[in-house]
Amino acid sequence: MNSFTAKTIEQITPLDETTMQAARARQDQLTKPQGALGRLEALSIQIAGITGNVRPRLKQPVVITMAADHGIARQGVSAYPSEVTPQMVLNFLHGGAAINVLARHVGARVAVVDMGVAAELPVHPELTNCKIAYGTRDFSSGPAMTWDEAERSIQAGIEIALREISRGADLIGTGDMGIGNTTPSSAIVATITNRSVAQVTGRGTGVDDAGLSRKIQTIERGLQLNQPNPADGIDVLSKVGGFEIGGLAGVMIGAASKRVPVVIDGFISGAAALIACTVAPSVQPYLIAAHRSVEIGHRAMLDHMRLTPLFDLDLRLGEGTGAALGISLCIAACKILDEMATFVDAGVSEKS
Amino acid sequence: MNSFTAKTIEQITPLDETTMQAARARQDQLTKPQGALGRLEALSIQIAGITGNVRPRLKQPVVITMAADHGIARQGVSAYPSEVTPQMVLNFLHGGAAINVLARHVGARVAVVDMGVAAELPVHPELTNCKIAYGTRDFSSGPAMTWDEAERSIQAGIEIALREISRGADLIGTGDMGIGNTTPSSAIVATITNRSVAQVTGRGTGVDDAGLSRKIQTIERGLQLNQPNPADGIDVLSKVGGFEIGGLAGVMIGAASKRVPVVIDGFISGAAALIACTVAPSVQPYLIAAHRSVEIGHRAMLDHMRLTPLFDLDLRLGEGTGAALGISLCIAACKILDEMATFVDAGVSEKS
Repeated sequence: MNSFTAKTIEQITPLDETTMQAARARQDQLTKPQGALGRLEALSIQIAGITGNVRPRLKQPVVITMAADHGIARQGVSAYPSEVTPQMVLNFLHGGAAINVLARHVGARVAVVDMGVAAELPVHPELTNCKIAYGTRDFSSGPAMTWDEAERSIQAGIEIALREISRGADLIGTGDMGIGNTTPSSAIVATITNRSVAQVTGRGTGVDDAGLSRKIQTIERGLQLNQPNPADGIDVLSKVGGFEIGGLAGVMIGAASKRVPVVIDGFISGAAALIACTVAPSVQPYLIAAHRSVEIGHRAMLDHMRLTPLFDLDLRLGEGTGAALGISLCIAACKILDEMATFVDAGVSEKS
Repeated sequence: MNSFTAKTIEQITPLDETTMQAARARQDQLTKPQGALGRLEALSIQIAGITGNVRPRLKQPVVITMAADHGIARQGVSAYPSEVTPQMVLNFLHGGAAINVLARHVGARVAVVDMGVAAELPVHPELTNCKIAYGTRDFSSGPAMTWDEAERSIQAGIEIALREISRGADLIGTGDMGIGNTTPSSAIVATITNRSVAQVTGRGTGVDDAGLSRKIQTIERGLQLNQPNPADGIDVLSKVGGFEIGGLAGVMIGAASKRVPVVIDGFISGAAALIACTVAPSVQPYLIAAHRSVEIGHRAMLDHMRLTPLFDLDLRLGEGTGAALGISLCIAACKILDEMATFVDAGVSEKS
């Protein structure tokens, strides 16, 4: 990897155990049976350990939604045409997409990033142009991108995370848009978790049986041809990845380097997390898996990273929609830790 | 049942199928693959059918948290002493309990109701006095309450729901507080779902092995003695129930009669829902199960009512904490239906 990314990774520390113990002790003094708020308690303690604050107050959540196109889409692996990628970016900028609705609902901002959309996009205050190229190349006939493009996509993601954090972001959600991007995500999970392609490939936005079978064969051909090295995240990214996947991996690395928790969305964000954790295993404790996606390969990803999703609402949209709902749970968990009365404060009798 | 309750039940209608079809059609035109938001889409359609509005806008959620004491607590079935019930009611009124924190987080008001706390409580604008008695009697040595008390607790709950709705509430969550109340709830689920007591009895706020064994034996003795009729909800409530359980059953009936959705919390609200659905099966479509509780009997309840919880965060607190988080998901689901752009609005290409 390049020196910028290497230096960022060097700054990532383990979670602060002392703060986590203090947060656990505080949870146990709050007016409820110990452990009665289950996953919310564990989540608050993780965030305390990430931030180094016993009572973290998360005020400025942002969902970073990265868009890019995929050469592999020409193989008929998606139910939608590639022109939908830029159309949906415009929809994000106009506030009409699901991620806009859910981000507004939870009080988060949406930062849209063009990592490699195969179209010209307008200048807009909520859109950042980090276009690495006009889409990746078709990985069924060669590498998806050059090594340099892979490194630059990760660096761009780190820079976006650092920019958002310098502007006050204290909780980051990840999201994606890219027609065809479940295909590179399946290729990544098959490679890194050593599963067969058929085990980790689903219908994405909704291909039929013939489409699914074509998708599996296309990925198998691409892996056979490119031979990505599962131990080298940049090799995997360059051979079978995508620019938004590299960018989101960078966002996770950048956020971890600044001790900011990252709520990862579904399957594409999961592929980015696999790249990030392969490049830098120290990122893993900073990740919070929002939900379990309908995409069948998602379970293998989460198992590999030892992440347990917060909820399962049968979502399969991406954009950061699951991450937005997860952000609301993170904030709720921290408010429990910060705002509840203790047994002593409230004059409530403890367990006999 | 009394004529007030009977007349309320007569007003409950099936969900509006025409509105649900229109809401389904609208979901399918929004800029996302059809069905990609999974349970959120189904939830929005249910709420459309409940309210009769294709684009329901939920603006005034309220969590109704009902408190009462239980004579059965004298049998050592809880880890906490009964004095905690009034102490926690004061904590609710001071805003320091988990339900206050989570209700604030989701923008809901908490309406606290004394259905039968065994202590004098202060006059407070957020506390309604519907005290049926100073706690139930110990159901291991006779019925928990008289038939008249059971009817009055349901009627009081209906009246509370109607009052909140007349003040503008358009989404109701249910919550409970009552030391010992997992014990009557287990007795109710064992009776109505025809399960053994051991199958549906858990540790509540945290009894040890000896306490759990005592709890199971106490419930078995109570059921043997009282012989509640599983087909008669008021008989079950009067013999082995609780005043907050009757009150919450009434809240569900009252809300359904006014076409207001009800988000039910965990195990105690589930017991109330079993009573409500036994008394009035037409209530069921108006119920939304927020979460799956850690209490082992909860699954049997939900299966019996054919309800699928929205999430599972290992919660076991009650108070309406799970319902508050469920309220946020209901509002999110309705915002998706109402606020998202259609393919035509946004100029996005449809599936090929």
